[in-house]
Amino acid sequence: MAADTARAKIASMNEITTQSGNAPTAAAATIADAVLQALCFDANGLVPAIAQQHDTGEVLMMAWMNRDAVRETLATGRVCYFSRSRGRLWRKGESSGQTQHLKELRVDCDGDTLLLLVQQDGVACHTGRRNCFFRAARDGGLIEIAAPEVSPEALYGHSHG
Amino acid sequence: MAADTARAKIASMNEITTQSGNAPTAAAATIADAVLQALCFDANGLVPAIAQQHDTGEVLMMAWMNRDAVRETLATGRVCYFSRSRGRLWRKGESSGQTQHLKELRVDCDGDTLLLLVQQDGVACHTGRRNCFFRAARDGGLIEIAAPEVSPEALYGHSHG
Repeated sequence: MAADTARAKIASMNEITTQSGNAPTAAAATIADAVLQALCFDANGLVPAIAQQHDTGEVLMMAWMNRDAVRETLATGRVCYFSRSRGRLWRKGESSGQTQHLKELRVDCDGDTLLLLVQQDGVACHTGRRNCFFRAARDGGLIEIAAPEVSPEALYGHSHG
Repeated sequence: MAADTARAKIASMNEITTQSGNAPTAAAATIADAVLQALCFDANGLVPAIAQQHDTGEVLMMAWMNRDAVRETLATGRVCYFSRSRGRLWRKGESSGQTQHLKELRVDCDGDTLLLLVQQDGVACHTGRRNCFFRAARDGGLIEIAAPEVSPEALYGHSHG
């Protein structure tokens, strides 16, 4: 496939046709039921979720969701993960203010991975970088290819989220 | 950040500066050592790896890698995963011919997820679709937003890969 065709295709695929409001609705509950039914959670009740900036295609981060995180994200339009280290729901940006707004949720062929098209407020990475994938295998080693846009101290004080 | 700025940034970040050859080299071994040292494998010795088409930003699929898969991918330039269902290395496209060529491997902040910038030959999904994320939460349910470009039978006969 030519690159232009591929680009046109992803642009077309990223046109969001629903999810017009952010308030919990009966429709959101129905969608959540359909999504949860399609998902295969792992032994810990989690699925990996890839967050992608909806308009640029930048892969921002990967985190995990449990059933409640999926439900809350679909109901509120604000992305909520499950923090494995903290053992609880993690409303992205709850500490840092760097929230993610859901544009569309997609499920993969096997139902074991989510792709979240999001609008990222500020930076996605707790290091202050726009995305978490800032180390690249280049030049005989692993090098940093992006600098922080904001200091972690400015984001969190002494916490993390 | 304005969308144009973000696009310019991802385009700039995706400029690949090394990995010029596909043959195993001493440099590849050094890079593999650096990458493996930075990675935190899970209890099963695996890390999730997101495959993204390098020039369009399309997220193609998510699969898993063990240490050997990371080493082989960096050494050969052809993406090799670890198949959890088959319990062995899975050279993407070994059955279907739909191979992935590594453009760049990136490691996330916590070292527990890989982002692979790839050139996908043909389709990435075993259903015959270009990518695996063809079901979207829209219109009150989960709907298919992409059709197969090739039939699974044409890809595999009776196998799968």
